Amino acid sequence: MVFDRNEHPHRRYNPLLGEWILVSPQRAKRPWQGQQETVVSDTLPSHDPSCYLCAGNTRANGEINPDYSDCFVFDNDFAALLNREVQYTAPPDSFFTLQPERGINRVVCFSPYHHLTLAEMNVTAIEKVISTWQSEFEQLGQLDYINHVQIFENKGAVMGCSNPHPHGQIWAQSSLPTQVAKTHEHLTRYYQQKGTNLLSDYVQAEIQAKERVVYSNAHCIVVVPFWATWPYETLLLPKRTIATILEFTAAEKASFAEAIKVLTVKYDNLFQTSFPYSAGIHQAPTDGMPHPEWHLHMHFYPPLLRSASVKKFMVGYEMLGEAQRDITPEQSAALLRETSNQHYKQT
Amino acid sequence: MVFDRNEHPHRRYNPLLGEWILVSPQRAKRPWQGQQETVVSDTLPSHDPSCYLCAGNTRANGEINPDYSDCFVFDNDFAALLNREVQYTAPPDSFFTLQPERGINRVVCFSPYHHLTLAEMNVTAIEKVISTWQSEFEQLGQLDYINHVQIFENKGAVMGCSNPHPHGQIWAQSSLPTQVAKTHEHLTRYYQQKGTNLLSDYVQAEIQAKERVVYSNAHCIVVVPFWATWPYETLLLPKRTIATILEFTAAEKASFAEAIKVLTVKYDNLFQTSFPYSAGIHQAPTDGMPHPEWHLHMHFYPPLLRSASVKKFMVGYEMLGEAQRDITPEQSAALLRETSNQHYKQT
Ligand SMILES: O=P(O)(O)O[C@H]1O[C@H](CO)[C@@H](O)[C@H](O)[C@H]1O
Ligand SMILES: O=P(O)(O)O[C@H]1O[C@H](CO)[C@@H](O)[C@H](O)[C@H]1O
Repeated sequence: MVFDRNEHPHRRYNPLLGEWILVSPQRAKRPWQGQQETVVSDTLPSHDPSCYLCAGNTRANGEINPDYSDCFVFDNDFAALLNREVQYTAPPDSFFTLQPERGINRVVCFSPYHHLTLAEMNVTAIEKVISTWQSEFEQLGQLDYINHVQIFENKGAVMGCSNPHPHGQIWAQSSLPTQVAKTHEHLTRYYQQKGTNLLSDYVQAEIQAKERVVYSNAHCIVVVPFWATWPYETLLLPKRTIATILEFTAAEKASFAEAIKVLTVKYDNLFQTSFPYSAGIHQAPTDGMPHPEWHLHMHFYPPLLRSASVKKFMVGYEMLGEAQRDITPEQSAALLRETSNQHYKQT
Repeated sequence: MVFDRNEHPHRRYNPLLGEWILVSPQRAKRPWQGQQETVVSDTLPSHDPSCYLCAGNTRANGEINPDYSDCFVFDNDFAALLNREVQYTAPPDSFFTLQPERGINRVVCFSPYHHLTLAEMNVTAIEKVISTWQSEFEQLGQLDYINHVQIFENKGAVMGCSNPHPHGQIWAQSSLPTQVAKTHEHLTRYYQQKGTNLLSDYVQAEIQAKERVVYSNAHCIVVVPFWATWPYETLLLPKRTIATILEFTAAEKASFAEAIKVLTVKYDNLFQTSFPYSAGIHQAPTDGMPHPEWHLHMHFYPPLLRSASVKKFMVGYEMLGEAQRDITPEQSAALLRETSNQHYKQT
């Protein structure tokens, strides 16, 4: 029998991580009798007196939020990283290898309006979020003990987000975290071997192939990557080779904001629900070195599989073996591409 | 300030995967206002006429389960891998690298009793499960196109398990899946460099260190590994260097069954609930070669963090950066060690 990508189990290679994933297109027909996720109600107030992120409210540590009008940034009250230098002498070669880690955790409120999400904000407001990311990235990245700045958002209760108020986080630290270190290694190796940029070349290959492109505008493109693991995982990239968001021209920033808007609207429309995801931008290390091997990109990892209440579980085989998906990346891209760019709540 | 493992954020190195994880001991005090998991009721019938795994019942494909009395194995009705040869010619060097993958997926019922779990089965019944794993591993591993056999269990709705009937799965395939390939690479490198077995040396180091040992009997040991990512993650290993479960002596098999029993009872007792987890055995490839670098081990990845209804979310930072934990592995091990070996339902 001749291999058919839409019928036969196969593995695909992720050149950013150097890892394979398993694709089982024939399995999409499997019935689901398992856990149903709670679907969030759509009726939130624009200001919630009990929300610790709303303007004017008091946080856990007693501080009062200012009366902010677009974005608001503060140090995380329950930080995973601490900005404190400690002395440590590693014991000789052993199984018990550890290193102290220094860093800063911040929270970024995207809007004072409690009931909004990026999908319902306008492009100008999203541009302000990007401006905030830029100033934070610049400020944190300049510190001599900060070599990596991770900007990300957890959206939805199913993604461990405990407050619907639109917000993201920034974790800045001394080391390159594991996933970034792997990406860095593969980008570097490609650059050394070919003299060109892996992701810039990939953007061109996807523009040519067309079938995985979800959206494209003047300066940015959204694809379901060939090696996507989550059912509706996407990758948002600028078309030009730039290493960090500090290099955005005004037009590129506007295109990036527009792409976030269109993508998050499509996501919400897909299952007519506020679509949960974790998303974040991978950028060059802030180690003060040039990074021609880097091309910034934003990953969107949404967990939903078939409806607002049925997610994909990355469990047993996936934890012990490798990531596995049912629907193919090409099918997901086609569905997202065809999904309306007008938010369902506004039509 | 001098570094203190119980107070200061740090990273630990996982020598099986060659990856780091972030430990934030100070963060355990964080309040939780997010998603609560549904706690499963404890009152299941011993036979459920609507369960597709119970003896005598009819499955999705119309087949009738036999009237089995201990374990029962069948081919998964919605397999992710197919046992079919396909022809594929890879295109030249490109971003679109894939390979067809051939394999077999089986379901293993642990007991005809719908209401039981490993924690509530007796050691003799667990030994029968291990015997079933052995005959499946042997039979599947002998096939010339099968080079890896993954035995695993998803337990609990939160781990994507759609049926409480005690069962696990086996996915056998041609390639080494990503996580196993990484483990294989690190075991091999260590063996080549030191001439000894990584995990056998690690077992000795943990026996000496004592603080991460949860349980030990004549032939097996359970530890919270130094590099554990999930709050109550454990590793169960035989003390002798053996590559697969086919090498168990009768006494080792009994010890392994006893260790599974004690560990799953401790898990259930920790939060007085049927403790969810994904667990599975990593073993040498079934490629017909000798594997002195391998030492079989069973991983337990349980998601719960603070109670029966609050799990750890591996989301934004964890997906984009690296795995992160709050409570230290030493604290988790102490808690599990002190937890009773008598199941709470039976006292
Ligand atoms: O095969 P099941 O139990 O239907 O499905 C479960 O386990 C599989 C193997 O880990 C996963 O791929 C699925 O996402 C999960 O829901
Ligand atoms: O910081 P939060 O929103 O309280 O917590 C959430 O995001 C963090 C960063 O991804 C995770 O470590 C937590 O498990 C998750 O619940």
